[in-house]
Amino acid sequence: MNPNCKIKAPFFEIGPKSYLFGQDVIDLAKAADAASAKYDVDIIFTTPIVEIARVKAATSRIHVFAPHMDPLKPGRGLADILPESLIAAGAEGVMLNHCEKPLTLGVLKETIKRADEVGLTTIVCADSMAEASMIAMLNPNIIVAEPSELIGTGVSVGPEYVKAATDAVKKINPSILVLTAAGIANGQDVYNTIFAGADATGSSSGVAKAADRAAMVDEMISAVRKAWNARKN
Amino acid sequence: MNPNCKIKAPFFEIGPKSYLFGQDVIDLAKAADAASAKYDVDIIFTTPIVEIARVKAATSRIHVFAPHMDPLKPGRGLADILPESLIAAGAEGVMLNHCEKPLTLGVLKETIKRADEVGLTTIVCADSMAEASMIAMLNPNIIVAEPSELIGTGVSVGPEYVKAATDAVKKINPSILVLTAAGIANGQDVYNTIFAGADATGSSSGVAKAADRAAMVDEMISAVRKAWNARKN
Amino acid sequence: MNPNCKIKAPFFEIGPKSYLFGQDVIDLAKAADAASAKYDVDIIFTTPIVEIARVKAATSRIHVFAPHMDPLKPGRGLADILPESLIAAGAEGVMLNHCEKPLTLGVLKETIKRADEVGLTTIVCADSMAEASMIAMLNPNIIVAEPSELIGTGVSVGPEYVKAATDAVKKINPSILVLTAAGIANGQDVYNTIFAGADATGSSSGVAKAADRAAMVDEMISAVRKAWNARKN
Amino acid sequence: MNPNCKIKAPFFEIGPKSYLFGQDVIDLAKAADAASAKYDVDIIFTTPIVEIARVKAATSRIHVFAPHMDPLKPGRGLADILPESLIAAGAEGVMLNHCEKPLTLGVLKETIKRADEVGLTTIVCADSMAEASMIAMLNPNIIVAEPSELIGTGVSVGPEYVKAATDAVKKINPSILVLTAAGIANGQDVYNTIFAGADATGSSSGVAKAADRAAMVDEMISAVRKAWNARKN
Repeated sequence: MNPNCKIKAPFFEIGPKSYLFGQDVIDLAKAADAASAKYDVDIIFTTPIVEIARVKAATSRIHVFAPHMDPLKPGRGLADILPESLIAAGAEGVMLNHCEKPLTLGVLKETIKRADEVGLTTIVCADSMAEASMIAMLNPNIIVAEPSELIGTGVSVGPEYVKAATDAVKKINPSILVLTAAGIANGQDVYNTIFAGADATGSSSGVAKAADRAAMVDEMISAVRKAWNARKN
Repeated sequence: MNPNCKIKAPFFEIGPKSYLFGQDVIDLAKAADAASAKYDVDIIFTTPIVEIARVKAATSRIHVFAPHMDPLKPGRGLADILPESLIAAGAEGVMLNHCEKPLTLGVLKETIKRADEVGLTTIVCADSMAEASMIAMLNPNIIVAEPSELIGTGVSVGPEYVKAATDAVKKINPSILVLTAAGIANGQDVYNTIFAGADATGSSSGVAKAADRAAMVDEMISAVRKAWNARKN
Repeated sequence: MNPNCKIKAPFFEIGPKSYLFGQDVIDLAKAADAASAKYDVDIIFTTPIVEIARVKAATSRIHVFAPHMDPLKPGRGLADILPESLIAAGAEGVMLNHCEKPLTLGVLKETIKRADEVGLTTIVCADSMAEASMIAMLNPNIIVAEPSELIGTGVSVGPEYVKAATDAVKKINPSILVLTAAGIANGQDVYNTIFAGADATGSSSGVAKAADRAAMVDEMISAVRKAWNARKN
Repeated sequence: MNPNCKIKAPFFEIGPKSYLFGQDVIDLAKAADAASAKYDVDIIFTTPIVEIARVKAATSRIHVFAPHMDPLKPGRGLADILPESLIAAGAEGVMLNHCEKPLTLGVLKETIKRADEVGLTTIVCADSMAEASMIAMLNPNIIVAEPSELIGTGVSVGPEYVKAATDAVKKINPSILVLTAAGIANGQDVYNTIFAGADATGSSSGVAKAADRAAMVDEMISAVRKAWNARKN
């Protein structure tokens, strides 16, 4: 667990994956930056590796994360993603073990250790509550508990899952932040998830495929703020 | 084969791999840019994915290449390297099938096809003459014929290998440029390889681990020019 | 190329893959054994690894092949398939690079070399004519030229493909036997393929999913013989 | 967790890996069978896939395990290891996640579930105490807690590790049996490990590379019995 993690609940994760590239990624990052300031909500922007430096240069508030890294140290490794190189490019953290880039248990453990060494915040994906509990034992900063069968479907998880997954992780380490998501398609989905007790939620295709991406980001981040305020009262 | 390939013999390939990161990569790229102009030698700079945009912005003459890409089209693929994203970041080409990132035959074929579609020049690695001949049938722009057991050793390939590997590829498609390398440690190795008949040669650890990297680049590129001129006379 | 390859045209390849297991595999092997004798047609029976010894013990005429092997030598490698262990269990050859088990170019080359060393006949899969030509340069005993998009569909390849793929391989090495298949669903498909000029054809799902598997094997092997005789006259 | 697991402490695991093949595997299995009867100690014999049926036929007391399986169901999968096929060949269980065949978290979870469905006992490898605790949450029958850096070295783990790893697993699920090993080279190593509190230990290279393998098996299994009896008094 990176002790210098700057992210606090409530927060939101946006990942354009490979849906977008080039200027579209930069524009989306700027929209996220604006929404983060407008609603005072932390946003993790999981940025394609190739755009990390440009996204960092174009924004001031979002948390720039890489979608993956390898645990190597400086040396050989032609196409590997070197932890130190992410920091040099402006990344603040790294997502690991997404269902589109699954890791073996040994590599996951080693990569979290490398992230801790170099000072990158870790957000690690689990595709079920059982996995979320297991990964909690590796002490990442954030766990994404996302039933992988719902990813990209527009069908979102229910409040019971949100609560159960969050509790399962906190029981093992209460310092770990828990993001529950999958199928988040609009502000209402966001509201429901945060109101149900999540520290955070997020969206990839829901934002990337929206007709007006900036408007969708504003709608979703606004919903984070409203739900959080409602929960606090 | 990308018909708009801008590279012509003699040329040189520099790949910092994961030996360097951040400003060191930018500085090396600038040194390569200067040497390319000074000696009128094309240089492929195989850039860590995360540094492509910054290297492109900092240079004007070197050919910025990615060390890998995936054959996907825009869509899902959290940590994949999207071909279109490389072009958007300023890459002109892509290296494929390096022994540190080997591909199956089917994926290699599909990725070369995607590169041709989007207009990226392809430089494909073969670890033997037999592989070089096979890969020639896929019509990449450039083939690296590099006995993988010598990579990183400082022991360079001999002139017989240079000639035989070059001829093996040209026999199948004379338009393919052939780079022979492995173990290139100084200007003399470069001179010998180009003088022996190679279109190109290159270095990773020989440059990245040099005490004065810029001086080593200057020495090697100077040797390319001298050997080529000697060959022509 | 294993110089002691015992297979000659016309021949047929049957692969139960994971459609069948246990006694069903043994029974299918026996049916193939009977059909091989009845029609004097060589049959490669690509046997699940776990059934190689039992299939060999239960048959006398079919050629027992493994569906894969690793290039390792005796030593570590808990779950690897050791070449020497296949021979000890009674295998005569090995299939490599099937689209359900694709190999990198380097591993494919090394594995064919190991097969030659220990005396296993190699049947290597290519998913297109381009791949078939490339693989021919590695000199396996047999190449399967099978458009992978048709595998398991019941749509078979046409006579032009059969001829073109066969010629493409023989042009590089006339000693290589060529099997063209994909979508072979009945005796008529078999007849058409062999009559069109193939050295061999084969079936997986067409046999494994047949209501009466032994009858389907008999129908297909009978068709091999008839088509071959018709071609010779 | 397979409810019909027949193995009880103390037990021993022998894995010839790819060190041995053919008749040598059968002979070692027979030696293990004899030692199991002689000392009344359960033995898991992790058998190369290709030898499972022959080892099962040649023995009566040892527990025949596969070194790996895939989670597929009957269908396509040319070179996959189908769970149902292991049972048909006589296997009683399966080893998963060995450091020579590591699995992603998702695949490991799914494969344990498939093993439970078909009735195979699971022995899952962890390369550290942290991993052992995590894997315990997936409820396999047995966990191997084996620091991977010691595997094959002849340097064995100390009693503190044995106790701590065993306790870490039992704390999560006391029904899980724990095998601690790595570097077990002779009967004394075995004695020390069992006496220190392990349910089980095991050896691969220590047995496979012994000058007299049958004698080494006898020595080690005898040590299991002696240490267990000493522990009980």
